[in-house]
Order: sequence, then C-alpha cells, then structure tokens
Amino acid sequence: MKIDSKLDLVLERTLDLTPEEVWKGWTTPDLICKWFCPEPWKVTEAEVDLRPGGIFKTIMQSPEGEKFPNAGCFLETVPNKKLTWTDCLLPDFRPVASIESGAGLHFTATILMEPAAGGKTKYTAIAMHRDETDRKKHEEMGFHQGWGICADQLEKLMKSLR
Amino acid sequence: MKIDSKLDLVLERTLDLTPEEVWKGWTTPDLICKWFCPEPWKVTEAEVDLRPGGIFKTIMQSPEGEKFPNAGCFLETVPNKKLTWTDCLLPDFRPVASIESGAGLHFTATILMEPAAGGKTKYTAIAMHRDETDRKKHEEMGFHQGWGICADQLEKLMKSLR
Repeated sequence: MKIDSKLDLVLERTLDLTPEEVWKGWTTPDLICKWFCPEPWKVTEAEVDLRPGGIFKTIMQSPEGEKFPNAGCFLETVPNKKLTWTDCLLPDFRPVASIESGAGLHFTATILMEPAAGGKTKYTAIAMHRDETDRKKHEEMGFHQGWGICADQLEKLMKSLR
Repeated sequence: MKIDSKLDLVLERTLDLTPEEVWKGWTTPDLICKWFCPEPWKVTEAEVDLRPGGIFKTIMQSPEGEKFPNAGCFLETVPNKKLTWTDCLLPDFRPVASIESGAGLHFTATILMEPAAGGKTKYTAIAMHRDETDRKKHEEMGFHQGWGICADQLEKLMKSLR
C-alpha cells in the first residue's frame, strides 16, 4: 500500500488480539453491531458479503434515534490479512448516486492485520480520499479518535468472547 | 451479473475470434492503441495493470489533435472471461477527484467473453451508471454505435494477426 500523507489518514495500533480475532470481529454482522461505532452511537444493522463487489453496509443510530446508513462494496478481501472497501461504489461495483455514508464523503478504506509478537496484531486502518479537503474534513470529524475508540471496543469485545 | 435496464447499457455481439484473442486485444497496450476508439479518433497511449486496483488508462486523440485521458482502475479480471473496471476509482482504489474520462461521466464497465460455436466468442459489453440521467447521456453520446464500431475494429485487428 502506498500511503499519501496529503490525502490519506492512518491509524496504527497494536491490538491484544490475533489477526483471526480481528478478522472475525470485522466480518461478522452480529459482532460489527457491538463495536463498530463509538458509544453511545449504535450500529443497528450490518450486511457483509466479502466477495469483491459484495455489499458492506451498516446502519448507525444516533443517541436521539436518527439512523444513518453507510453503504459500499468490498474491493479486496484477504482473510485474516486485508480488508478493502469503498463507498464510491455500491454492490456489483455500481457507481454511487449520492454518498450514503455517515461521513458524507467518499473514501476507500483498508484494514491491515499483521501478526505481532505475543499473539497480538499490528492493526493499520487507512482511509484514502480524493483530495486534501476531504482528508481534512474526515480528520476534523474525529477520524483518529473515532477509529481509535472503535479499535478499543473491538479489542474488548473479542477478548470477552474467548 | 445483474443488469438493470434503467441504469445500464449493453452491447451484445458474436465475434469471429476466440475468447483468448478478445482478451489479448483488450489487455495488450500496443493492440489497444489500434482498435480502442472509432476512427478517425486515435488512442495514443494505453496503460494496463490487470491486478485489482491496477491502472487502466488510455489517452484518446481527436482528429484535431486534442487529447482526452481516460483513467480508472481494474476491479475484477478473469483471463479470457471477464474484465471489469471503473472510472470512479484511480489506481489503488483511490476515489477520483474529477472525472478523467472522455465520456465525462462515471461508469463501471464489464466485458464478458464466452466461447461460442465455431471458435467464436459471445461478447457482452456492459456499462453501469449511477442514475438514469448518466445512462441516457452515455446512450446519446453513441454508446451502442461507438462500442459496436470498436468491436468491429477489434475483430478485424485480431484476425489480421493470425
């Protein structure tokens, strides 16, 4: 992956989970509903079809009960290693008409899972944007804090399932 | 492939070529330059990297010498069977900032090659759009005629190379 620091946002963490646990948390709809957005927001629905062109959709609900769908499709999925999707394309790679995403901006995201010492995982989340304006907007929306809180929630959830 | 007749354009032809010949014509830059747009337009450059996320770029030149780049990336490539790319994403799946395409619209295209009787190929070209406006615009730009002429040029070229 070539990272462009002007256009991309990156979160790097070491998670006390195996790559298999991270993968399972990221790709199982029932589990996604339990960690995928910072509380007190909730994910009320998740749809995951891991083939390239398959749907990746979540519905987030604000504390006030308002629902925000995030729809996109997977581009590349390598079990226990890599997960790439975009909200620029709907299932079967159809160009999206309006941005159905809570962020209200187009991005392609990649999650990298690499084995680390002690059965842990080097976890890298990358969001690629089309321009500096969108990167900045995403950063100001709290990308690092938000994705960091979610990583904590993922770690806590998957450890509780051991 | 699910075709949506309100949003997609489809060209179906039987080409007097094998699927392997069609694939070769579609994926070899030097050959693309010889058939990929209706004469007297020319393709002066072609770049092809068939991995998902790899570049697919052509530069078309009008009879007056004006150049029009078409840039996108491959989404799914199955040798001698299927080729899917989009101009919504640049290489490595980065969201496109402005539409770098002669058509001036976003679409995802799929070419299907199926063996037919007599060593021929059932050739299906599908352009998927985000809405009816874009489908109509693409149709009025001469999708069927243009892609049909190109299919003829591809057939003629590849037969000449036997």
